[in-house]
Amino acid sequence: MAFNKRVKIKTILDTNPIGTEVTLMGWVRTKRGNKNVSFIALNDGSIITNYQVVADPNLISEEILKKCATGACLKVTGNVVASQGAGQSSELNATSIEVLGEADPEKYPLQPKKHSMEFLRENAHLRMRTNTFSAVFRVRHALAFAVHKYFNDKGFFYIHTPIITASDAEGAGETFKVTTLDLKNPPKTSEGGIDYKQDFFERETNLTVSGQLEGELAAMALADIYTFGPTFRAENSNTTRHLAEFWMIEPEMAFYDAEDNADLAEDFLKYVIRYALDNCAEDLAFLDTRLQEEEKVKPADQRSEMSLMDKLRFVVDNDFVRITYTEAIDILRNSNPNKKKKFSYLIESWGADLQSEHERFLVEKHFKKPVILTDYPKDIKSFYMRQNDDGKTVAAMDILFPGIGEIVGGSQREERMDVLTKRMEEMNIPQDEMWWYLDTRRFGATPHAGFGLGFERMVLFVTGMGNIRDVIAFPRTPGNAEF
Amino acid sequence: MAFNKRVKIKTILDTNPIGTEVTLMGWVRTKRGNKNVSFIALNDGSIITNYQVVADPNLISEEILKKCATGACLKVTGNVVASQGAGQSSELNATSIEVLGEADPEKYPLQPKKHSMEFLRENAHLRMRTNTFSAVFRVRHALAFAVHKYFNDKGFFYIHTPIITASDAEGAGETFKVTTLDLKNPPKTSEGGIDYKQDFFERETNLTVSGQLEGELAAMALADIYTFGPTFRAENSNTTRHLAEFWMIEPEMAFYDAEDNADLAEDFLKYVIRYALDNCAEDLAFLDTRLQEEEKVKPADQRSEMSLMDKLRFVVDNDFVRITYTEAIDILRNSNPNKKKKFSYLIESWGADLQSEHERFLVEKHFKKPVILTDYPKDIKSFYMRQNDDGKTVAAMDILFPGIGEIVGGSQREERMDVLTKRMEEMNIPQDEMWWYLDTRRFGATPHAGFGLGFERMVLFVTGMGNIRDVIAFPRTPGNAEF
Repeated sequence: MAFNKRVKIKTILDTNPIGTEVTLMGWVRTKRGNKNVSFIALNDGSIITNYQVVADPNLISEEILKKCATGACLKVTGNVVASQGAGQSSELNATSIEVLGEADPEKYPLQPKKHSMEFLRENAHLRMRTNTFSAVFRVRHALAFAVHKYFNDKGFFYIHTPIITASDAEGAGETFKVTTLDLKNPPKTSEGGIDYKQDFFERETNLTVSGQLEGELAAMALADIYTFGPTFRAENSNTTRHLAEFWMIEPEMAFYDAEDNADLAEDFLKYVIRYALDNCAEDLAFLDTRLQEEEKVKPADQRSEMSLMDKLRFVVDNDFVRITYTEAIDILRNSNPNKKKKFSYLIESWGADLQSEHERFLVEKHFKKPVILTDYPKDIKSFYMRQNDDGKTVAAMDILFPGIGEIVGGSQREERMDVLTKRMEEMNIPQDEMWWYLDTRRFGATPHAGFGLGFERMVLFVTGMGNIRDVIAFPRTPGNAEF
Repeated sequence: MAFNKRVKIKTILDTNPIGTEVTLMGWVRTKRGNKNVSFIALNDGSIITNYQVVADPNLISEEILKKCATGACLKVTGNVVASQGAGQSSELNATSIEVLGEADPEKYPLQPKKHSMEFLRENAHLRMRTNTFSAVFRVRHALAFAVHKYFNDKGFFYIHTPIITASDAEGAGETFKVTTLDLKNPPKTSEGGIDYKQDFFERETNLTVSGQLEGELAAMALADIYTFGPTFRAENSNTTRHLAEFWMIEPEMAFYDAEDNADLAEDFLKYVIRYALDNCAEDLAFLDTRLQEEEKVKPADQRSEMSLMDKLRFVVDNDFVRITYTEAIDILRNSNPNKKKKFSYLIESWGADLQSEHERFLVEKHFKKPVILTDYPKDIKSFYMRQNDDGKTVAAMDILFPGIGEIVGGSQREERMDVLTKRMEEMNIPQDEMWWYLDTRRFGATPHAGFGLGFERMVLFVTGMGNIRDVIAFPRTPGNAEF
């Protein structure tokens, strides 16, 4: 017999069905009251709002009520009535309560008090039951759906690029090895090296750092494609901005040049954030308040000038400024923080790599708008970026956001076989391993472009969370692979 | 200056803008004609249909026309006019053609002739430029979008469960190791084992075989969740049904019992297939014809009785039959192929694992409907499946489709701490490593259920392709990690 005859709390709040009998199922957040009445705040994950269950001890036994502790799971049937108190328009007068699962108050880790983020990270299997994390993961869902909806509506095709790969040509950093060899006793070649011919794939393989190169192959057939999948970096970075495993979105478009690429990226970012504003109002309001409280305890000079909602509106409501790297260097070199030596890294000459402090200065102080920086020096960018006629720069772009700095990186791709192979030679990229990539320049090549968005960076920006480990369900970082 | 001023061929065919000037960009599929006129079939990936470009040698130079060989990439501007020939209502009278990228007919692998599937697999970087594969990957996209849309519309939240994991508790098969240790010279403990404390995650890690266990954690907070991510099996299976890397969809629902689970799965499968029927008409028509031609060359007794469209309609239009494993064994034991010893594996007694031949007999011959088989013997199923009161069976379900056999496997999960831990003991599942999983039974437990769908199996079913390597862009199988 079907068990799931419940109504979701979100539906109750949306439809306000006063006078009807309903069954709710969810988890107790708090219980308070006296010997005449108990008030149970129930949450079922569908919305951040708890729903108030009113339990009359004449109808619900003391034994049952005792078990309705924080964390317990309940099935409650009752009548929806107009609420007596403030805050909520209705509440449930319980006629029966069944305790589906208890939560011993002596042992349940999530008691109703403030827990440190570190404690919650150690209890990542339970933290989604808190207001903050349930809000984060509902917003994360909405952002992921918005990504798919945006591209689907525009006629892009979703491609699953490989996770296990034999190529590390992008040189984007340290990779994780993937193997089925016995580490204690791996087979050796006659020269004494590891005999990868005996490994599962009969060659050395690792986890992908990007789906871009394979995405380009698909774009040369289907024209407009995107990826959305996990990528990996084995970098020993214990920061609030790095994960060893994270999700990337990488659209790749045939027939796009650098300007088309920037147009799409700006439109895409605005769409996704607007989608969250339109669909996650309660969660964002909660996270906005949460951030304001976090900011209050910081020293005044470290507080953000913008609230969370300010930052989201800032992106949605402004045209992004587009300037070249060369123009940015001029602005930064002549800026007050550079002249007064306030930057940790002073900008002295063309060719310098920009730091987060410079990116944030441009966005937050100088332009007060999101910024698309273009045409970077080729020597600080990847081999596949299209060379400009000046011989010095490439048609790259980085998009800079307030608070977070770079959120998107992309470029027009080098479609000219001779220019590409010359650059690969200069940068020691092995061409024989990349025969398939070069084939797309050999046969039916066309101008094309693409960009990458680290999905957790987007979730971090939209939720206002301070640590990237708190926007993915089970973060992977050096020393951490629990759950 | 923006380059992407093209109109997609799909848009042209949808809107039929006769009398207007447009620019198309795409790849030449074929060129034919004579010295007075050339007909170029252009494809831009937006739709399977090629668009006919008519080139008058008085307007387009011979030099350009010579370069418009199969595989070349063109930018064509011209006027949309009513088509002279059959098949298509309009065509493009070219006023200018720019060759964006040539394709040397002596070297381009995809000449207009029939290529073997094996040859195309070796050229997976180009095969999406063929009709068959472009259709498969457009359908794959539509199916993926339908999955997200279905769950989003029902209030489910998408969870990214970890790819790198330290747990292999499900015991679903061989796993790939993930490591940053130097395989030539790995650090050793004093006892002579590998010192995983020095590995990136300070423990032994592997690639996930399923996101289910982590999905359950999320369902105990957000109630209705789903995963859609890559999973891995290091099994040395060189078959048309196995991949080492494939994508799984795993919904997990609090407050669902076995019947709720089956209801959701049936509704979900019908929705996704109906979505493809509604949104991929041209591609499915092409794939239907393709399959009919494939079938024609098979011996009569191996031909499928149903066409591709028949099979899709079969799923969408029928109520799925629901029977228990025990009932299925009775039917199979008394069936003609069992009595006449036509089955390769004869069904003799209760407890036997069903083979594909038995599943297909039930679906295709006996019921002539999709079948949901429930309540399997506990000894052939996983530790986390809920035990039935008979002590012999668990609340598992497999959903069986024509042609393909099992497409979905799921169960109600064992939420009772004592029953679960007893079963883990019996099956030697280490409880200390699974403390976080057991916590969901310790605190606020509730009846819950879920299922898994191998996404490539669904794509295989909907496209009618014969080999699972042909429905994922860059397949990973033993010995194959190219691209």
